[in-house]
Amino acid sequence: MHAPLNEFPSIAAAILAQVRERRPRVHCITNAVAQNFTANLLLACGAIPSMTIAREEIESFAARADALLVNLGTFDPERKAAADIATRQMQAQEKPWVLDPVLIERSPPRAEYARALVKQKPSAIRLNTAEFGTLSAAPADPDSVARYANAQGVVIALTGATDLVADGRRTLHISNGHGLMGLVTAMGCAASALLAACLAVEKDTSLAAAAALLGLGVAGELAGERARGPGSFAVEILDALYNLDRATLIARAKVA
Amino acid sequence: MHAPLNEFPSIAAAILAQVRERRPRVHCITNAVAQNFTANLLLACGAIPSMTIAREEIESFAARADALLVNLGTFDPERKAAADIATRQMQAQEKPWVLDPVLIERSPPRAEYARALVKQKPSAIRLNTAEFGTLSAAPADPDSVARYANAQGVVIALTGATDLVADGRRTLHISNGHGLMGLVTAMGCAASALLAACLAVEKDTSLAAAAALLGLGVAGELAGERARGPGSFAVEILDALYNLDRATLIARAKVA
Amino acid sequence: MHAPLNEFPSIAAAILAQVRERRPRVHCITNAVAQNFTANLLLACGAIPSMTIAREEIESFAARADALLVNLGTFDPERKAAADIATRQMQAQEKPWVLDPVLIERSPPRAEYARALVKQKPSAIRLNTAEFGTLSAAPADPDSVARYANAQGVVIALTGATDLVADGRRTLHISNGHGLMGLVTAMGCAASALLAACLAVEKDTSLAAAAALLGLGVAGELAGERARGPGSFAVEILDALYNLDRATLIARAKVA
Repeated sequence: MHAPLNEFPSIAAAILAQVRERRPRVHCITNAVAQNFTANLLLACGAIPSMTIAREEIESFAARADALLVNLGTFDPERKAAADIATRQMQAQEKPWVLDPVLIERSPPRAEYARALVKQKPSAIRLNTAEFGTLSAAPADPDSVARYANAQGVVIALTGATDLVADGRRTLHISNGHGLMGLVTAMGCAASALLAACLAVEKDTSLAAAAALLGLGVAGELAGERARGPGSFAVEILDALYNLDRATLIARAKVA
Repeated sequence: MHAPLNEFPSIAAAILAQVRERRPRVHCITNAVAQNFTANLLLACGAIPSMTIAREEIESFAARADALLVNLGTFDPERKAAADIATRQMQAQEKPWVLDPVLIERSPPRAEYARALVKQKPSAIRLNTAEFGTLSAAPADPDSVARYANAQGVVIALTGATDLVADGRRTLHISNGHGLMGLVTAMGCAASALLAACLAVEKDTSLAAAAALLGLGVAGELAGERARGPGSFAVEILDALYNLDRATLIARAKVA
Repeated sequence: MHAPLNEFPSIAAAILAQVRERRPRVHCITNAVAQNFTANLLLACGAIPSMTIAREEIESFAARADALLVNLGTFDPERKAAADIATRQMQAQEKPWVLDPVLIERSPPRAEYARALVKQKPSAIRLNTAEFGTLSAAPADPDSVARYANAQGVVIALTGATDLVADGRRTLHISNGHGLMGLVTAMGCAASALLAACLAVEKDTSLAAAAALLGLGVAGELAGERARGPGSFAVEILDALYNLDRATLIARAKVA
């Protein structure tokens, strides 16, 4: 992440354009609540989702995927076995994978499993403030986030009113987005999936993560201008991502 | 449920306002078809959904939830184990829980399991005519519903063209709603979840149940006026719930 | 499939009208990504979906269903056991069932299982070009499709820019549809479910399959004229199916 800050929006636009052009395959081990919206969001951005969690075929799917998402919502033994197989395979193939430790603050066994997965070297972790607090046992301020990213050798994508993307050396702040994003289930899960799609086309993990969050944030703003509530917002954000163009992304980007 | 009938709409409005203000956590053990819509409907009303069914963490989630929904659609051993743990925990913590015995008329083992769950003392049961007939072995007329509610010590929320809410002493009839509600999957499941959310903020189970059904019915009418079919109706009802205000609820309420 | 080609659109309209009138029960053993959209699409067309995959109750549900869908997306041991029970039961009751071998090109064990299911005599198989290639080890051209249909004694419904419906003696080409259908997850899965609904009301499997694909294709065109992207398209196609009338279907049909 060495690019000057003012070049970042156009770099992000190029990464999102690459997703549309190269149509990466993103395998998602994700919760049942999020599967449909996540698949539709990936398709709207040009990526190709797959979602199986069956033990017998997870290896075949992971072998043919360009990136992997492991999301811990509605976690169960089947998904756990799948995640163990798939993350090992991504490591072996040197392909990127993203961890989304959903709601770990509510379940000590889930938090423990998330910490074990961090040792499996995800490329990036996408999470919110409460989840970061539980994962790192530190407050979710920029310094702690940067320290954790550095210590674990992972990119942290912390979403909230302002999103942070930290790789331990540099931290980007992205202030795009809309309040209704928090009232549509699986919005964070889908953000993590888009992050995985961007990783599939961009080697610089921080840039890929920031591109995903910027794209989603700007699409969220566009959707918020048209929506009358969370129902229409969920529809509009898919349309906005599908239609998002370089000029709009650059004009609206609030990155610091 | 001692309030005079003409005060009920404003009481219902106050209960729904409490859901928005206090943002109760509603844990849902529900079917895979309904999970996404249920989560979005809870969020649109201000509640915070969680959905895990994993045996290892259901206890952690139930302990941190303000109310529980057990929905029997797409039932399997994992959900059954989760329901057994979670309902016991709600009882132990004296927190409310709602049973939704989906489609028990189609599956004798499911019906038997539903009857066993009734003995675990749900606060309320939300169901339709066919399901009530199977559960109670009685016709779904107001007298039988009241008798069953009284005998089991449970509030019955029977949904249909006119909804009934019966606690054994008094029965409310709510005639709001729209025909397209029957053409959107999981509408009943989501009604049960909203009922659980209302129970989390209101101790009078009948009032909470009636508030949930009135809110959903009025939102359904508003959605029906804007929708062109079941696709747009599902979107519009989420927006309508999100925007539902006290004056509209009171003006439109058809309660007897 | 002996009707003259120019009569086919009105026959298709009659089959879709029968689905609305008779409201067949369609049991779907389908993947978690597709369950919600599939249920909503069936409801929009007038059919009544059920979705359980639990071993203990699949027999009860299959016994009360008018048609069955077995979709192999997100396949796991539970769904496999359910499919084995349900397909045997449909055979025993001489009721129709549809196989949808989702993404078998990505997973050798899934492909093997799909080939085993073909021996269980589905009425029809709905799939795309890549899936047909893996299933039949032949290219997806009209001749190979017809040969495979003939050899296996099954109707093949191959969807793509032009859909083919082949029973081994005759092949229909349907050129309706819209590009956004490929950007909404579970569109093919839902097509297979609609096919099962049509089979429940029409004994001629080829006609039923072609009616389903024509109906969905025309609805897709109507949706495409209103939609601004894949989010609104998914909503609009449900509304379009719900409102689809005979005159529009006949006027727009592109069948050869």
